[in-house]
Amino acid sequence: MVGGAATYFSIAASFFTEVRIVAVVGQDFEAHVQKVFGGRTIDLAGLQKVPGETFRWKGEYGFDLNTRETIYTRLNVFEQFKPTIPPSYVDSPFVFLGNIHPTLQVEVLDQVRRPRLVGADTMNYWIERTPAELTAVLKRVDVLLINDSEARELAGESNLVKAARTIQAKGPKTLVIKRGEHGVLMTRSSGGFFAAPAMPLEEVFDPTGAGDTFAGGFLGYLASCTNIDDAALARAIIYGSTLASFAVEDFSVDRLLRLTSDEVKARFDEFKKLTHFDAI
Amino acid sequence: MVGGAATYFSIAASFFTEVRIVAVVGQDFEAHVQKVFGGRTIDLAGLQKVPGETFRWKGEYGFDLNTRETIYTRLNVFEQFKPTIPPSYVDSPFVFLGNIHPTLQVEVLDQVRRPRLVGADTMNYWIERTPAELTAVLKRVDVLLINDSEARELAGESNLVKAARTIQAKGPKTLVIKRGEHGVLMTRSSGGFFAAPAMPLEEVFDPTGAGDTFAGGFLGYLASCTNIDDAALARAIIYGSTLASFAVEDFSVDRLLRLTSDEVKARFDEFKKLTHFDAI
Repeated sequence: MVGGAATYFSIAASFFTEVRIVAVVGQDFEAHVQKVFGGRTIDLAGLQKVPGETFRWKGEYGFDLNTRETIYTRLNVFEQFKPTIPPSYVDSPFVFLGNIHPTLQVEVLDQVRRPRLVGADTMNYWIERTPAELTAVLKRVDVLLINDSEARELAGESNLVKAARTIQAKGPKTLVIKRGEHGVLMTRSSGGFFAAPAMPLEEVFDPTGAGDTFAGGFLGYLASCTNIDDAALARAIIYGSTLASFAVEDFSVDRLLRLTSDEVKARFDEFKKLTHFDAI
Repeated sequence: MVGGAATYFSIAASFFTEVRIVAVVGQDFEAHVQKVFGGRTIDLAGLQKVPGETFRWKGEYGFDLNTRETIYTRLNVFEQFKPTIPPSYVDSPFVFLGNIHPTLQVEVLDQVRRPRLVGADTMNYWIERTPAELTAVLKRVDVLLINDSEARELAGESNLVKAARTIQAKGPKTLVIKRGEHGVLMTRSSGGFFAAPAMPLEEVFDPTGAGDTFAGGFLGYLASCTNIDDAALARAIIYGSTLASFAVEDFSVDRLLRLTSDEVKARFDEFKKLTHFDAI
């Protein structure tokens, strides 16, 4: 089925802003391009189409969908990927660096001109194998989005509050810790945290891409804001959670493709009902 | 160190209401009674003191404190425990049935007169070994407080939303699912859910008793409410989370013993800041 971090991210972000993709696909993706990206504010100038097969991953989820096992990972055309920023992209005010070798993330940043905000993803693979390169990226990142076990590993600290402070000292002022079905935790400029649960869902078909969809909703909403303050960041967390909650309701990007702005608005309101309590 | 579900529960609930304990301790607990329960609105008429040693548990927590391994469990005087309700307790409007053999839970209920609200705890041990007896208890319970893996096991259903509906059909109108450091999920009369994160804490010394402290804060606050509606239940979740967040900050009940009402109020306010976002 169709997947890919850039795919989920772009569709989610396109609900809020114009998106410019930088990615690589093989010839087998050609048939999906129009269906997945067509009719949206998604610029494909940076989408490289090369001979060969697209990156392919196969995995199996556990009983409660909180764990997954990789059956195979075939890099295919991704193996030789060198992200190239088209001239029309160089003034992009918001940049999101997907989960890829940190040296390539730095090369992307070197190609863009003074972005207003830089977001990034990474994973345990890079934390363990390329710590020096990752450190270089983190110095230039404003918002890092990773999961809780990655945050603990990156900081070398089991306590999440202490881990967050350690990671902030490496560069990213804002750290967004994704916890799957348990929601999201974000550092705030005040020194405290913002926390949001995930929407409890009756049908979860496919958690694949939920984190990338979250990132797309989060960054896409921020790109539509005039001021990026704590209130905007909190709403961005809820928009990211909203988009992710739809993504898992069907396989692949199918639910996102038939999602409407009215549904997004309605679920944002549901999040308010889910979490609201009266002050004392 | 001093522990016990009734101990944590009673101290937490005593911040909001009068508490009446039904429990058993051995001679070794005698020295702790005044320090732990003294100076609080905790009635000890139902506290049986018998020859022998108090229940004792030893365990070891994992790296991130989310898992624990039991090293030994010595039932001691608890093995022969038969809860007896003193005459002065029979009109108690709120009853909480601690985690114990479901047949004993029923016997407690049979000794009290038409309580306004019945809460209960249970565990995988009873779910697996005494399902029929547990089913009989659940029919008479208004609020069941269990953790997420127990909810999944009790319902035989991996999806928490479906599991919650299945459990509600067994009796408890309100189901409170405890998720440790990931917070709490509660069913609402509207059919939806209320969700609250746990307070991110820099120092977590000892998670033992956090669930019992939560239950005490939750039930204790409800007992102080005139109307038990969705708004009161949501605030009760936050009070329960507030008390639990203090309990883990030191070993045993030490933090709870030096806790003040002002600190409780201040942390409730912190929970508001932690979770608040503006509607759109």
